[in-house]
Amino acid sequence: MILIGERINGGFKDISQAVKEKDKTVLEKWAQKQAKAGATYIDVNIGAISNKIEDFLWMIESVQAAVSTPISIDCNKISFLKEALKICEKEPLINSTTAHDERLEQIIPLAIEYKASLIGVCMDEKGSPQDVNRRVELAAKIFTAAIEKGLPTEKLFLDPVVMPLKFLQPQASHILEAISQFKLLSEPSPHIVVGLSNISSQTTEMKLINRTFLVMAIGVGLDAAICEVTDTELVNAAITAELVQNKHIYSDSFLKAYHTTSSSQGI
Amino acid sequence: MILIGERINGGFKDISQAVKEKDKTVLEKWAQKQAKAGATYIDVNIGAISNKIEDFLWMIESVQAAVSTPISIDCNKISFLKEALKICEKEPLINSTTAHDERLEQIIPLAIEYKASLIGVCMDEKGSPQDVNRRVELAAKIFTAAIEKGLPTEKLFLDPVVMPLKFLQPQASHILEAISQFKLLSEPSPHIVVGLSNISSQTTEMKLINRTFLVMAIGVGLDAAICEVTDTELVNAAITAELVQNKHIYSDSFLKAYHTTSSSQGI
Repeated sequence: MILIGERINGGFKDISQAVKEKDKTVLEKWAQKQAKAGATYIDVNIGAISNKIEDFLWMIESVQAAVSTPISIDCNKISFLKEALKICEKEPLINSTTAHDERLEQIIPLAIEYKASLIGVCMDEKGSPQDVNRRVELAAKIFTAAIEKGLPTEKLFLDPVVMPLKFLQPQASHILEAISQFKLLSEPSPHIVVGLSNISSQTTEMKLINRTFLVMAIGVGLDAAICEVTDTELVNAAITAELVQNKHIYSDSFLKAYHTTSSSQGI
Repeated sequence: MILIGERINGGFKDISQAVKEKDKTVLEKWAQKQAKAGATYIDVNIGAISNKIEDFLWMIESVQAAVSTPISIDCNKISFLKEALKICEKEPLINSTTAHDERLEQIIPLAIEYKASLIGVCMDEKGSPQDVNRRVELAAKIFTAAIEKGLPTEKLFLDPVVMPLKFLQPQASHILEAISQFKLLSEPSPHIVVGLSNISSQTTEMKLINRTFLVMAIGVGLDAAICEVTDTELVNAAITAELVQNKHIYSDSFLKAYHTTSSSQGI
């Protein structure tokens, strides 16, 4: 399972304050916590708190000073992305391109140049997809563009766009069906990723809904998630789902074995 | 979700002792606990503790005296089944027939006569299935026999035979794939049921494995399980999986709403 730690995001108060005050310790703490919990990438998102490229680069540098886990560069601005790519010490993940022609044209070559992996989000100028077919259509568009330009399949992550269960309940089944169809794009298929926390937005049972939806999504082919990696029950559910799929060998200490291996990589 | 409470089984020490001593209170307690937890059926299995039909009928009667939840008659002996069917106050579930011709010939007509539902376990004289194809073949055999003899599809439950993850790890994926293929037998499809606890047999993380496998199985079409219905986390995971599938309408109190409705039916 490829776990992308979502916590270093300007949307959280402690992160916003830390960026303003240039207090590295908060970012270091969250980087270490997420690396220890098994994050494959540490997502860094400045959110709406600053327009300064220096602030974004400072965030990435703070994380890199604390852990060796690669960065997931989470930003919309191509100018920010370009600068961020220059300072990443390990091959990063670009989070993200959409299926807009213009963005595909610009971002895919950047991913290739920097040996970065790339999340392709299945939306375009017409907005978010509302059904399975539209998701698959946009996934195929991103996949084709990536392959034609020379991005290796194993560097591409397709994102079917998770929507809140509370407000768009029928979408959840569409997303699961879309994941199972993304798997058919190639053999081996590209990675499939979700921004998990969207599913439980404004619900009273966030962790239960996150965990249950994640297991169902893994069941149909998901292999990556941007999520709360410090939620042990969530990560244990994901490991167990992969155990059921025979991706880890069963031992009585399968949870411990996974945590030992994955957390030793980042810190 | 159709939940079949597994706890009234002679394999448990307290049940075995209660049957020997004809102590109704133990069976009443478990019947009520399971009904309250949302059991759709209360499974009654005498196990190896007695060969006397009176003992089995006493078990069923004790349960019926305590709750109005229908009985799942869990026995291999056709003579026991016949007597048990006569005393069931509500339409019961017969647990189970296999795909043996002889058993299909005898048990399907009994199910029809008593308006019982019937679990068809995908094994026959050659033993347990080892792959997806064999499971589907046996499911199709049971399904065809049931339909030809006149059992309504909605009364048939197909069981793909769950095996322990610890000892037969690759089987888990086969079972999930078999479930998704059973769904294609007809429209609407028959119910699909598992004996859930087998998956976690002799593991150190029984509840986590049960819960995770159940959610994955619901994700591919399972709608019934013989399980530990008093495990609240298990039942909540199942409800949430069905919420993701849009089978219950979301409300902030969706767990409470489900428990209130389901437990009020049996007690």
